[in-house]
Amino acid sequence: MNRKRLIIIGGDAAGMSAASQAKKRNKDLDVLVLERGDYISYAACGMPYMVSGVIKDPDSLLILTPEKARANRGIDVRTRHEVVSVDLKNCSVTVKAGKGIGKAMGKMMGKGQGDEARTFEEHYDGLVFATGARPRLPAAKGINLEGVMVLRDFADGLALKDRRDVKDVVIVGAGLVGLEMAESFRRLERNVTMLKRSDGPLLDMDPALSELVEQELVRNGCVLLKGSPLEEMVGDDSGKVVAVRAGGETRRADLVLLATGVAPNSEPAREAGLKLGVKDTIAVNEHLATSHTGVFAAGDCVSQIHRVSHKEVFVSQALAANRSGKIAGANVAEYLSGGNQFSTHPGTMATVLTKVFDLQVGTCGLTVNEAKAAGFETGFTWIKQHSRSHYYPGGSPLFVGLVYERKTGRLLGGQIVGKEGGAKRLDVLVTALSAKMDLETLSRLDLSYCPPYSPPWDPVLIAASIALKSI
Amino acid sequence: MNRKRLIIIGGDAAGMSAASQAKKRNKDLDVLVLERGDYISYAACGMPYMVSGVIKDPDSLLILTPEKARANRGIDVRTRHEVVSVDLKNCSVTVKAGKGIGKAMGKMMGKGQGDEARTFEEHYDGLVFATGARPRLPAAKGINLEGVMVLRDFADGLALKDRRDVKDVVIVGAGLVGLEMAESFRRLERNVTMLKRSDGPLLDMDPALSELVEQELVRNGCVLLKGSPLEEMVGDDSGKVVAVRAGGETRRADLVLLATGVAPNSEPAREAGLKLGVKDTIAVNEHLATSHTGVFAAGDCVSQIHRVSHKEVFVSQALAANRSGKIAGANVAEYLSGGNQFSTHPGTMATVLTKVFDLQVGTCGLTVNEAKAAGFETGFTWIKQHSRSHYYPGGSPLFVGLVYERKTGRLLGGQIVGKEGGAKRLDVLVTALSAKMDLETLSRLDLSYCPPYSPPWDPVLIAASIALKSI
Repeated sequence: MNRKRLIIIGGDAAGMSAASQAKKRNKDLDVLVLERGDYISYAACGMPYMVSGVIKDPDSLLILTPEKARANRGIDVRTRHEVVSVDLKNCSVTVKAGKGIGKAMGKMMGKGQGDEARTFEEHYDGLVFATGARPRLPAAKGINLEGVMVLRDFADGLALKDRRDVKDVVIVGAGLVGLEMAESFRRLERNVTMLKRSDGPLLDMDPALSELVEQELVRNGCVLLKGSPLEEMVGDDSGKVVAVRAGGETRRADLVLLATGVAPNSEPAREAGLKLGVKDTIAVNEHLATSHTGVFAAGDCVSQIHRVSHKEVFVSQALAANRSGKIAGANVAEYLSGGNQFSTHPGTMATVLTKVFDLQVGTCGLTVNEAKAAGFETGFTWIKQHSRSHYYPGGSPLFVGLVYERKTGRLLGGQIVGKEGGAKRLDVLVTALSAKMDLETLSRLDLSYCPPYSPPWDPVLIAASIALKSI
Repeated sequence: MNRKRLIIIGGDAAGMSAASQAKKRNKDLDVLVLERGDYISYAACGMPYMVSGVIKDPDSLLILTPEKARANRGIDVRTRHEVVSVDLKNCSVTVKAGKGIGKAMGKMMGKGQGDEARTFEEHYDGLVFATGARPRLPAAKGINLEGVMVLRDFADGLALKDRRDVKDVVIVGAGLVGLEMAESFRRLERNVTMLKRSDGPLLDMDPALSELVEQELVRNGCVLLKGSPLEEMVGDDSGKVVAVRAGGETRRADLVLLATGVAPNSEPAREAGLKLGVKDTIAVNEHLATSHTGVFAAGDCVSQIHRVSHKEVFVSQALAANRSGKIAGANVAEYLSGGNQFSTHPGTMATVLTKVFDLQVGTCGLTVNEAKAAGFETGFTWIKQHSRSHYYPGGSPLFVGLVYERKTGRLLGGQIVGKEGGAKRLDVLVTALSAKMDLETLSRLDLSYCPPYSPPWDPVLIAASIALKSI
């Protein structure tokens, strides 16, 4: 019997989830994962804590190794194998393998590209693109200077952890990576300056909630410069970064972290002729099928349908990568077996949760700006409540913000900031959003009460009740 | 203009919520609250922590005083005013007031009833019963002995706090009050024995989850005797309790806490001719209207509709008392103004959340037994997951159990036990239950992820996925 061959391009969360799920569905599949880097399936979201030393052992972030993938799951994983082109007509990929392959950013910055690579072709019956995303680098002078770094690959994390000689860190960008690395660098007692291009709120939250996070950064010794677009990074004679120019000012820096978002790695897909979607993602339908039969895509290289606006959005999320990989793996296995029972992707609630020093910060659904852009007549209400019964010691203020449609009272989004009880309360809003609840329905939930964990009227209920009065 | 008079019987959570809401809706109402005890509107759920000393100042549990209610809300509150009968035909109540009035349990046990009370009548235009519930006492000898106590009224809490001479405590009952007082007494370094009538699991949870709570009790030095119905309390010559006989054994006790549930205070309502509902609650419709026009009831003296089974149930909950009081207050004000825009009560999800030493313990919806009794072909799945990403320090196991209908996969109930992240994760299940989600929908939620707070696949998602495989 001729075994069918599934090739998966990329061996991180989405790729390994796809490989594992396909193999689980059909153990007779010959599954080959081609990963251009040195590592597969690492816990990217753990890296800020690995850099700071909160997580002692970097290896604990490595969920799977090629050896384990082969031994336990029967998956053939090859690292330092880069797919340089895909021939959709002939069902083959061209692979460059060997020393010097790897590190997306290194390549982009013109460093490192080895010359000892060999090139060969591999045939496939089914193909999954799980090529992920790469840092979206600002167009500024000095980007190739030593000490200008990113945090995306595991190797990036290790490199950041190795930089022990650093005193002055400038972080460009105040998104999740910027916020989490600010905490990490402060823990390492570095001087931290954060540059935020716009002068708008953090994470597109309501200004009142953003202000709390900004205060937390300042309270913990970070300098946050809003409305400070990066102009240039300045190096010394040896090519090391020594300063950053931004917003008309020059600041000392012996490490610059570029944390200005990510862009999907869709070049090989585009060059092969696959249709692209929003923000240069690989276009997929709800089965994660691309525009070419038998070819699927998953993870940070694809877009998702927003569950509130139903628009195609590009959101980089760990759960989404795992989930879409699993679905793509199931569906490519279904395709290869000739079936048509395809799993569907539920889309994204754009759920964001992060820790900023002592604060739990989360958003979900649409922000006010997004809701307006999606055409909703938008209302926003935020409340401050105590996280516990007022008389129970140890509580702290919890801030809950609700975005809603004025006309119908339908919940459109949620924002939570607080020291305790915020993280998973966010998921109450995610669940309510998924059920298309309106404010009244939300206000009538029988949420739990126990003095150490909550006041009798949970802050979510209070927020919904108060928002109700404004519609 | 003749002001309309609203009388509210009972000045605790439901009564004061009703009074405040009615006054808010119509400031011309003459609102009179008649409370037979000494205190109004106290935080009953905080009392175990007040007894243990976690909450230093007992007065912090007093949310409202009669003086404040009058000054800030324009409500006339009379304590030590007991309504002994209601004449529905003539719209009047007979009130006994003065020294000696109060303390439900005292009365039941034949103690204290003073003779200096005066009796008078009060007319009303609208009436709300918010008479609450009282401890349901076991039929056992020795119930009047000194040292046999309950925890229901604020005065009970103060009395328990005052008992400093105690060494051996026997708690009869292992419900919420029993569990929380076990922790409180251990914190006070008492020897604690808990008697549980049946040998079934705690809180009707799945045995696997109950076992975790039982271990937590034992680990903290409690003796838990299951299948040990109370037989008798033994006193010395002075009438002080010295021992308890249960399950054929005798155990030393200088304090016995009877925590065997509550019964609604529906006697005056029944005697007045109002219809009763399940478990002798005052029967009400979804507007909290009783069987007599213009008479409403709220709080622990009424039943609620279970939002999953749609059956009438008797559940004593703080939020429900507040919420139903608010609704009854709004509706009686509406009735008195001649309108018919009545608010409806959303019913109960029977949400229970408690702290048992270091464990957060919660249930919602239907238990397996309740689901079976309600006619569902019932499935149950529980999982153990880490509360954080496995590599992030400080996490602990979190147990999530799901009750569901086998045929449809509809979620029917949830159970959570864990040291962190359990309390408000329960509310995700409450929200999902309220939206009538099935396991598949639950498994597809975009729940939040951040290594310090959650693994990428939240335990709720894992539980739903695993449960899905069994239907």
